[in-house]
Amino acid sequence: MDLHGDFHVYDTTLRDGAQQEGLTLSVADKLSIARQLDGLGVGYVEGGWPGANPKDTAFFARAKDELDLRHARLTAFGATRRAGVAAADDPLVAALRDSGAGVVTLVAKSHDRHVELALRTTLEENLAMVRDTVAHLRAEGQEVFLDAEHFFDGYRANRAYALEVLRTAAEAGASVVALCDTNGGMLPGWVGDVVHDVVETTGARVGIHCHNDTGCAVANTLAAVDAGASHVQGTVNGYGERTGNADLVAVVANLQLKLGRQVLPEGLLREATRIAHAVAEVTNVPPASRQPYVGTSAFAHKAGLHASAIKVDPDLYQHMDPLGVGNDMRLLVSDMAGRASIELKGRELGFDLSSDSAEGRDLVARVTGRVKELELRGHTFEAADASFELLLLEELEGVRPSYVEVESWRVITETLTHAAPGEEAISEATVKLHAAGVRYVTTGEGNGPVNALDQALRTAIGQAYPQVTRFELIDYKVRILDQGHGTDAITRVLIETSDGESSWVTVGVGANVIEASWGALLDGLTYGLRRQGV
Amino acid sequence: MDLHGDFHVYDTTLRDGAQQEGLTLSVADKLSIARQLDGLGVGYVEGGWPGANPKDTAFFARAKDELDLRHARLTAFGATRRAGVAAADDPLVAALRDSGAGVVTLVAKSHDRHVELALRTTLEENLAMVRDTVAHLRAEGQEVFLDAEHFFDGYRANRAYALEVLRTAAEAGASVVALCDTNGGMLPGWVGDVVHDVVETTGARVGIHCHNDTGCAVANTLAAVDAGASHVQGTVNGYGERTGNADLVAVVANLQLKLGRQVLPEGLLREATRIAHAVAEVTNVPPASRQPYVGTSAFAHKAGLHASAIKVDPDLYQHMDPLGVGNDMRLLVSDMAGRASIELKGRELGFDLSSDSAEGRDLVARVTGRVKELELRGHTFEAADASFELLLLEELEGVRPSYVEVESWRVITETLTHAAPGEEAISEATVKLHAAGVRYVTTGEGNGPVNALDQALRTAIGQAYPQVTRFELIDYKVRILDQGHGTDAITRVLIETSDGESSWVTVGVGANVIEASWGALLDGLTYGLRRQGV
Repeated sequence: MDLHGDFHVYDTTLRDGAQQEGLTLSVADKLSIARQLDGLGVGYVEGGWPGANPKDTAFFARAKDELDLRHARLTAFGATRRAGVAAADDPLVAALRDSGAGVVTLVAKSHDRHVELALRTTLEENLAMVRDTVAHLRAEGQEVFLDAEHFFDGYRANRAYALEVLRTAAEAGASVVALCDTNGGMLPGWVGDVVHDVVETTGARVGIHCHNDTGCAVANTLAAVDAGASHVQGTVNGYGERTGNADLVAVVANLQLKLGRQVLPEGLLREATRIAHAVAEVTNVPPASRQPYVGTSAFAHKAGLHASAIKVDPDLYQHMDPLGVGNDMRLLVSDMAGRASIELKGRELGFDLSSDSAEGRDLVARVTGRVKELELRGHTFEAADASFELLLLEELEGVRPSYVEVESWRVITETLTHAAPGEEAISEATVKLHAAGVRYVTTGEGNGPVNALDQALRTAIGQAYPQVTRFELIDYKVRILDQGHGTDAITRVLIETSDGESSWVTVGVGANVIEASWGALLDGLTYGLRRQGV
Repeated sequence: MDLHGDFHVYDTTLRDGAQQEGLTLSVADKLSIARQLDGLGVGYVEGGWPGANPKDTAFFARAKDELDLRHARLTAFGATRRAGVAAADDPLVAALRDSGAGVVTLVAKSHDRHVELALRTTLEENLAMVRDTVAHLRAEGQEVFLDAEHFFDGYRANRAYALEVLRTAAEAGASVVALCDTNGGMLPGWVGDVVHDVVETTGARVGIHCHNDTGCAVANTLAAVDAGASHVQGTVNGYGERTGNADLVAVVANLQLKLGRQVLPEGLLREATRIAHAVAEVTNVPPASRQPYVGTSAFAHKAGLHASAIKVDPDLYQHMDPLGVGNDMRLLVSDMAGRASIELKGRELGFDLSSDSAEGRDLVARVTGRVKELELRGHTFEAADASFELLLLEELEGVRPSYVEVESWRVITETLTHAAPGEEAISEATVKLHAAGVRYVTTGEGNGPVNALDQALRTAIGQAYPQVTRFELIDYKVRILDQGHGTDAITRVLIETSDGESSWVTVGVGANVIEASWGALLDGLTYGLRRQGV
């Protein structure tokens, strides 16, 4: 399949998705998400607007060296030239030209009132701006797509002009004209009619860009494809301004699994659940459990009416095989479901818990009970395999793996007297513990309390077990649970530790964020030592 | 308008919505939600399954005395009689009959395989069960609707039998046959075709019940109405099993505001935002900010691209007037926003920045520059209005509002020597500052370092400015930015402070989480004092 030919799956998470309220992406976040999108097999990754904001400029600069995309083509987004300036002389156009992206998506006004009131120029000049900018970038060797902003409203207000904008872009060399429902007010029937007219009238290759303001972004996108569009834009997890953009995974899953159109490389849709969750980790927007296809609840069944029959034939009670999107069927509440998943998890980690002996059943029951109780108190084991394995080992061996006996720890964070504004506070931690029969009292400094604690702990344990010097704390996440109680709330900390070859995640929970962090830090080192065979 | 005639808006939040993972409703919760639904003006409130579970039985018992519905009719949900038993002798049918509800919705199998594998009876007996139960309840004076479970899958597998179930119910006296996409796998085109066929073939009044597994529940419902359905089922906030049910507010808003069909009593749709949020308070499921029509982000604008034109004409940038659903337009400040957003935000906050003088332009440019620079360093102002206002004041007045001069602060977090596992660490903070000409040295204790710091700071400032004793820290959020650098990463803290009447949000950023928290805490108190006119 020619990904860049028959059908375009075009992702705009990094640009339009980043417009979402509360979502801010660093350059490193953007690079990380771009790699995930490439793993999903999308054809285009729109990286942002180089030249218009420093972060996006930095992203394109680093992408040249650091991004090695297998499936996707990196795309820069930007506007047509300013009124009254030659395209070659517009610095924002130059930023697109020099971005290093092989494809540029130009946003252009196609609604006459927007041209007059927002751009403050004439309808003719707007057409010239489209023509010149497309032609200039084409001449410089880039592929150009057009995003026709407010197209559907513009089509209603002045069909002839809206179509003229598309024709102008296509004639100047744009290979796609994407119709944007920028305000998101459309319904599927309307979208289908307009796309059909555009395809018939212009003969151009038509794309579709929908927002979810009527709750119909996915259906609107499908209606456009049904009417002849062959380029779909959307975002992972439906991120975007207001109610968000079309959820690209739902669009693609419907196209492939419901309508039989293969639009991603074979097999990659099975990565969708993993990738949607991985992106949510980067954005730190908690994933919506009810999200179609990839939500944790999307194939979960509550006991009752259905659960009894699910055993007879799962296909009677689910609209598709969850594996098609890398998700899984879960049964809630029922004890059996709990045990089965613990058993499965145990097998994943190399423990055979499926024993038919009373002892085996008893072990699984104990682990299930402890997981339930700990999760009720705020732990999560889904993202913290290492903590789960320590818990399993504790139940298997009767005692939790441990290399140290902790006496006490203390962290002090303070500012200098009369510190200048912005001058950093410093943290200092002291740890007292016994390891391999020796008592250690160590101190660590850091730019934060957890950093200082990590230094002190590592120094103490490192004297007894030099292996820990290879370990590195590579990720640290905090989530406040039960919000609304201010600083009294329960805190959950996830820590990822690496030994240079692989990494593992541990969890800590507590009313005190430092204590929660301590628990996760200690578990991280314990797990690492155990894995080294110490 | 006859609410129970022309068109039925049928809510199943209390029954199907309550199947949502993590959602548990008490009897009091159900009564409270029923009143909210009545306030929205829905025609039917499905209360639950009396007889099948004790909570629902109790709900109907209390509803008789306590619920005084102005618009809605209370509806009981239940199954057709068991196989081989007379309807009058089935205790579950008796519970429906005696529920006190004027309407009963009977769920029946319409998919042949479900009859055989799940019900374990014959296709003929299933028809008799439908016929007998409908006739029995009708004879007892109740109105009866039929929910044809798994109808769309059943129609595909055995169209003749699926239609026969509907015909049997209608002939026995059911006034609505609702087609349920129980597994949620349908797309709008398919739903439209099937509904059209059912309307043509059976002549019965057709209802529609959709789930959101393909992300198309709202569009599927609209497609059914377009094909002749005149009874729509859904839930508030789209609650429901797996990916949820059709979001009733989005369905109704689309029907009224987009398609011009008045389906709620005049004026009540304007209560939708308030009611959706009130129901979320009862269910304790955090409302989705991106929810169509009623989400807090549904009419929020971020991009600078748009903000410049919103000043000219808001209707160019929103698909409808937010007041139509009782929502409101908001503008966000962010690194993507240009000067126009800053100007508008300033106006919202009571500052006229739109001066055409060079001085005014210069001021806006300075604020824009600082916002961009600070957001690049990890600040966010879209969620932190109070910090943005302090920044505005600083640029307007040449100096940042401040009531104290901080000398230094220190926080100690420590465990007891040989603390038992799970024993809480304690935090103690000392703050030294000058306020109103006096030097204060105060200490605060807390179950976490920020909590302790907040106590110490409040104690110090409270001696000079007693107004702060009314302030309360009501929310605290931490986000680690630029993840992948472990505990060295930049931390962003958002703090919400309340004075009992209103609340405001401040932001702090730093490599040290405690320092970031300190900045946000101090800003929170400063903003509060300034607002009190101190």
